[in-house]
Amino acid sequence: MRVAYQGESGAFSEAAVFEHFGPDVEAVPCLSFDDVFAAVEAGSVDSALVPIENSLAGTIHRNYDLLLQHTASVVGEHYLHVHHCLIGHPGVEITDIQKVISHPQALAQCEGYLRSLPGVKVEPVYDTAGSVKIVRDQGDRSVAAIASRRAASLYGMAVLDQNIEDLPNNITRFLAIARQPVYPTGDAKTTLVFSARNQPGSLFKALSVFALRDIDLTKIESRPLVGKTWEYLFYIDFAGSGVEQNVSRALSHLSEYAIMLRVFGSYPRHHYSEE
Amino acid sequence: MRVAYQGESGAFSEAAVFEHFGPDVEAVPCLSFDDVFAAVEAGSVDSALVPIENSLAGTIHRNYDLLLQHTASVVGEHYLHVHHCLIGHPGVEITDIQKVISHPQALAQCEGYLRSLPGVKVEPVYDTAGSVKIVRDQGDRSVAAIASRRAASLYGMAVLDQNIEDLPNNITRFLAIARQPVYPTGDAKTTLVFSARNQPGSLFKALSVFALRDIDLTKIESRPLVGKTWEYLFYIDFAGSGVEQNVSRALSHLSEYAIMLRVFGSYPRHHYSEE
Repeated sequence: MRVAYQGESGAFSEAAVFEHFGPDVEAVPCLSFDDVFAAVEAGSVDSALVPIENSLAGTIHRNYDLLLQHTASVVGEHYLHVHHCLIGHPGVEITDIQKVISHPQALAQCEGYLRSLPGVKVEPVYDTAGSVKIVRDQGDRSVAAIASRRAASLYGMAVLDQNIEDLPNNITRFLAIARQPVYPTGDAKTTLVFSARNQPGSLFKALSVFALRDIDLTKIESRPLVGKTWEYLFYIDFAGSGVEQNVSRALSHLSEYAIMLRVFGSYPRHHYSEE
Repeated sequence: MRVAYQGESGAFSEAAVFEHFGPDVEAVPCLSFDDVFAAVEAGSVDSALVPIENSLAGTIHRNYDLLLQHTASVVGEHYLHVHHCLIGHPGVEITDIQKVISHPQALAQCEGYLRSLPGVKVEPVYDTAGSVKIVRDQGDRSVAAIASRRAASLYGMAVLDQNIEDLPNNITRFLAIARQPVYPTGDAKTTLVFSARNQPGSLFKALSVFALRDIDLTKIESRPLVGKTWEYLFYIDFAGSGVEQNVSRALSHLSEYAIMLRVFGSYPRHHYSEE
């Protein structure tokens, strides 16, 4: 089984692929999210895993846009705890480090930690896993990277310090996508997007289709449609599967209020463990 | 009047400060959003402007968190159209450019444009305005930066190309904050956060307090409280001011359903113009 992800070997998305699909799948790196969706649609991979929201950085609108532009279905979800490590050459001490490189977002998430290392300079590079490769290839033992534990072992480098992120509970939620939908029974979730006119009460009416059937929402987010000042997109996740009669009734009821409605799919629910 | 913003001179946040407060205020640059809020609370500035959401990148959770951690009120909002320029030394042609530097997010927003420039390398640096300063100081006429038109004029550099962003309608919404709330009448908005238990229908009940009074929501977003699996924060904006009786009744009604409710303030509504 081949599963596409955005990034390079050692990226957090790759770790999510192995956690979700098991250690035996072939993880296929892609340069961009566009490439990930194109690979799924072309059939060059069986599935893909894309980040859809992060507990600190919020929703990744780009991947909702790509879901709308493509016909792929959502077939699963996965929560990944993101832990950053300080990674350097084997045998190096933290006090030897004079410069730290990583993706700007990783540097930002470890800003307080980095400030606690006296005199250390930081320098942004394009990728977390890539920063480990740079440290290895340049051979300068005073330079360290910030990336995942797996990136360290992949490039034969040493973990100098771990869990160096300033805020705990840095969790990224991924969606698994594939060409064919799945029809889960039991503990499931459904992801959809709809648009409604910006009229008082129109969202309330739309949400009534779930409330009247005791269907529990797990995500709701409005997004103004720029260029259409009076229209909104709404992102909704709810507990339940399209195979259940009350869910299919709610969706058909929702279509009465929605200008546009796209159900991306129902899938088995992933309960992440509190660490 | 002194107004704090995050970034350095020539940053898009600084442009928003002058658009919103007028050209005669003193814009005070701060290193981080934490520093911006601290400056407001300490009284070393009269007001501040912080980005709260972007039409492409979504909500900036960090600033909601800082609003919750501080006592400052929201006293205004501002929509800024973000347009990127390719900026180089005066007299240089686009065909002379061999390397383009900027903040990674600006580089990403101009990815398609950059690919259309044959053989041009890109390199991330920490700041859009800062990238113009680097191009000027290094003196290499084959290097260009991506930043605002204002950053070009601030550093005496030339705009080689404009509106080079791949997607139109790149709009950032800012909130103005100050120590004292305002009490607008007329066309106003109110911003609040509340939390509710994750029970079927609890959000629906909460939203009924607005729907029953014909109050129009302009933003709704759920955010799972990590570490508290069964609780959510909800971000709500609605049309109306706390000085109106139906609004104050809705808020008191909402407090019956909310575990936590914090009204950040009411403020005059800003209608951004479609370009």
